[in-house]
This record gives sequence, structure tokens and C-alpha cells, in this order.
Amino acid sequence: MFPLIAFDADDTLWENERYYREGRQLFDHLLEPYAPGVDVEAFVHELEIENLAYYGYGAAGFILSLIEAGGELTEGRFSSADNAALIAHLKRMLSAQVELLAGARQVVAELAGAHRLVLITKGDLRHQRLKVDGSGLAGFFERVEVVSEKSPGAYAGILKAEGVAPGDFLMIGNSMRSDVLPVLEIGGWAMHVPNELTWTHETLEDYPQENPRFSEAEGLEDVPARVRELEARRAG
Amino acid sequence: MFPLIAFDADDTLWENERYYREGRQLFDHLLEPYAPGVDVEAFVHELEIENLAYYGYGAAGFILSLIEAGGELTEGRFSSADNAALIAHLKRMLSAQVELLAGARQVVAELAGAHRLVLITKGDLRHQRLKVDGSGLAGFFERVEVVSEKSPGAYAGILKAEGVAPGDFLMIGNSMRSDVLPVLEIGGWAMHVPNELTWTHETLEDYPQENPRFSEAEGLEDVPARVRELEARRAG
Repeated sequence: MFPLIAFDADDTLWENERYYREGRQLFDHLLEPYAPGVDVEAFVHELEIENLAYYGYGAAGFILSLIEAGGELTEGRFSSADNAALIAHLKRMLSAQVELLAGARQVVAELAGAHRLVLITKGDLRHQRLKVDGSGLAGFFERVEVVSEKSPGAYAGILKAEGVAPGDFLMIGNSMRSDVLPVLEIGGWAMHVPNELTWTHETLEDYPQENPRFSEAEGLEDVPARVRELEARRAG
Repeated sequence: MFPLIAFDADDTLWENERYYREGRQLFDHLLEPYAPGVDVEAFVHELEIENLAYYGYGAAGFILSLIEAGGELTEGRFSSADNAALIAHLKRMLSAQVELLAGARQVVAELAGAHRLVLITKGDLRHQRLKVDGSGLAGFFERVEVVSEKSPGAYAGILKAEGVAPGDFLMIGNSMRSDVLPVLEIGGWAMHVPNELTWTHETLEDYPQENPRFSEAEGLEDVPARVRELEARRAG
């Protein structure tokens, strides 16, 4: 059995990307009267990526990028009322009830019965802690680790602090870029749980299908069976 | 000797509040053409405190509150250019070179020679990590802990993880509210290092002068002598 299993949180155990999609839809709606003559989607995406260097991941940086984009896409005509609507959406995001994905509680409870579980999530420290507290799942996790970037080094640091070797560690999450590839890179095991609403920045085409330490679940309910499969592979 | 000493970072070891003061001055300057007929200082202060529940502490929430206040104080006339100026200031805050306060490096180096040191700071995870990295002081600290609120419970959690009893712990910082009172409350030792630019939310009138586990340094250079004084008191 894996001595340590970690779960990602946003879009693995609970809804997250949905609130970002809603924010983008609100932004498109606010822009309509200004009829911007450019590809809004591409403009916003590029600005968001550029602003990651300042804001990192999280709802506040997302809305700040939309406020900035609003000004630039409308030659400064984007109004205070438009910005107020975006800020109101941000406050809704930051205070929304956590909505668990189907099967999340059962899967976490089942694995917690036989494994040490930790939660590893990236983004805004305060918001992530609030969501963990609001999820009702905190009691299943020995530790909650909020990191600003899910890099190989960040995972290595957590494993060092836990006294666990990478080969004894399994990470489960919806993002190939954040949850799977960096863990495989340091010699850990990783399971992908696809979520249809994954931010394009988090998606990658190069699936590590050939890697024996990689597995893909069909959905959350499929996770425990896949964990047993990986454990058999690891033992064998 | 204290088995564990912790430092606060913002306005204890490096400049922080100064960038907030500059942001507020910029905001006042941007508001001038609109001649708002209310007490701007009081309005902004109240909104910031209200928004702590959403944003927590940090530069992004500060600027988001100013954008919101701009719209409200000008009946929606605050312009996209005004908001762009605030966002540009935010990006300067988030990418500014860390400026150590006079004596910070010497004091930390001296105490690190004989004590285990940790850094305990609150606010935005990513920004705090960037500042620690940029300070050149990271090597003196065994651990850097970023918390979203410096509550008694947050300190107790850190001490538990470190395996240190409150009576063996000294916290050093510029905020009575965040660095001193919660530590005294759980039975720890605390030293106040006054900084003239401390946010009013962080100042309190009720100094715990009578508490034998409390000390006040005149400035950073005074800290090592005061630590020895507290250690003598603790031993005696």
C-alpha cells in the first residue's frame, strides 16, 4: 500500500473552474455594449498568463486581470459599474459554499481508512483554507498544504517534510500539468482524474501513458479500484 | 536560552507599510478631480476592514478595495485610467525589491548563531515567499510559515508542529495585535519592536507592560540585548 496519498482539491474534490467560467461569461456580457473588435478570449488568456507572475493563481488575480482587460479592450470606457459587477462576482467566489463533486466524500473516506492522506492545493492561502474548512473533508486529511506553484521542487519539499520517499507517494488530481507530471518527474506515482472543466492552462496533450507509475481514472468513483491496481503494480 | 525564536517579517525585518501608504497617496491624488465630499480616509478604512473577510491581508485585496472605493466615492465616475494606475501600483508592490530595515540582517544573523529561528508572516502566500527569497535572509530560518491570520490557534498549531512548548517560544515583531498579544495569550514570550509605519488596524493601546513574558525593544539593534534579558528572566 502507498504510505502516503495526496489529493488535489479544486476540480478534483470540489467545484472551482465553474466559478471562473461564470466570471468570464459575466465579463463577456459586460463588454457587449462596447463591441470590442478583437478576440477577447485570446486577449484575456494572454493577460492572465502574463499576470500569473504578479498574482499567482486564485480568484483575486483572475478578477484583477479582467478589470485590467476591461479598460484595455474598451479604450478606457469600461465603467465603474462594470468593475463593481466583477468585484461582486469575486466576493461571491470567495464566499461560495463548497460544492463537492459527486463521489468525493465516499472516495476520500474509503482511502482514509487505510492510508495517510494529505491535501495539496495551489493558490490563495486564505481561500484554500476556507474551502477546506467548508468542505467537511478536513478530518480525513492529516495535513493540508497550500503551495503557490505545484512544481517538482514543491512536491519534493513536502515529501521531505513528511519523511516519505517519492516511490512511496501517490498524487491524485485533475491537472496533468500540476498534479501528474511534476510528481512523475521526481519519481512519484500519479493518477489523473479528468474533469471536463479544467482551465486550458492546466491541460496538456502529452499524456505519460507509457509511464508505469501513471494511471488514469474514469472518474472519482473509479479512484479506489485504480489505487489498488497501482499498488499491485508497485508490489509486483 | 529560548529553544525557538520567531520573527515577523513585514515592517519588522523589511519595508512593507510604506508601499501601502504610497498606494493610498496615489488614490488620494486620483480622487482629487472628483472632489469627493466625504471623509475618504474613514471610508477606505471601513471598506478595507469589511473586505478582510473576503480578501484577507495583502496587496491584491488592498488595491481591490481602492478600486471599489473609487467607484463608490465618485458615483461611478472613477475611470479605467484611474484603475489602471492602481493596478500598476499593485504590480510595483508585488515585484518591488525587498528593502531590509536597518539592522535586520545583523540581528537575525546574530540570533541564528545560537537559536533555532523561524519566520512567521501573514498574508498572500506567493508574495510572502517571494519576499523571503528576495530578502537574502532565508538561510537563517529553519522554516517559513505563512498564515492567513495570526491567531492564538495559528501560533499553537505551529508550536505543536515544531514540538515546542509555548513557554519555550519567543515571538518578535512590530504588531501588538498580531505578534505580541496572541503569543502571550497561549503562554509564550513576545517582544515588540515598534515601527513608525504600522497600519492602524495593527495598533492597540492596551500594552501588556505588566506581563513578565513581554518586552519592548527600542529598535531592531536593541533586540539581542532584550532577548538576553528575557532569557535571564525566564531562567531566574
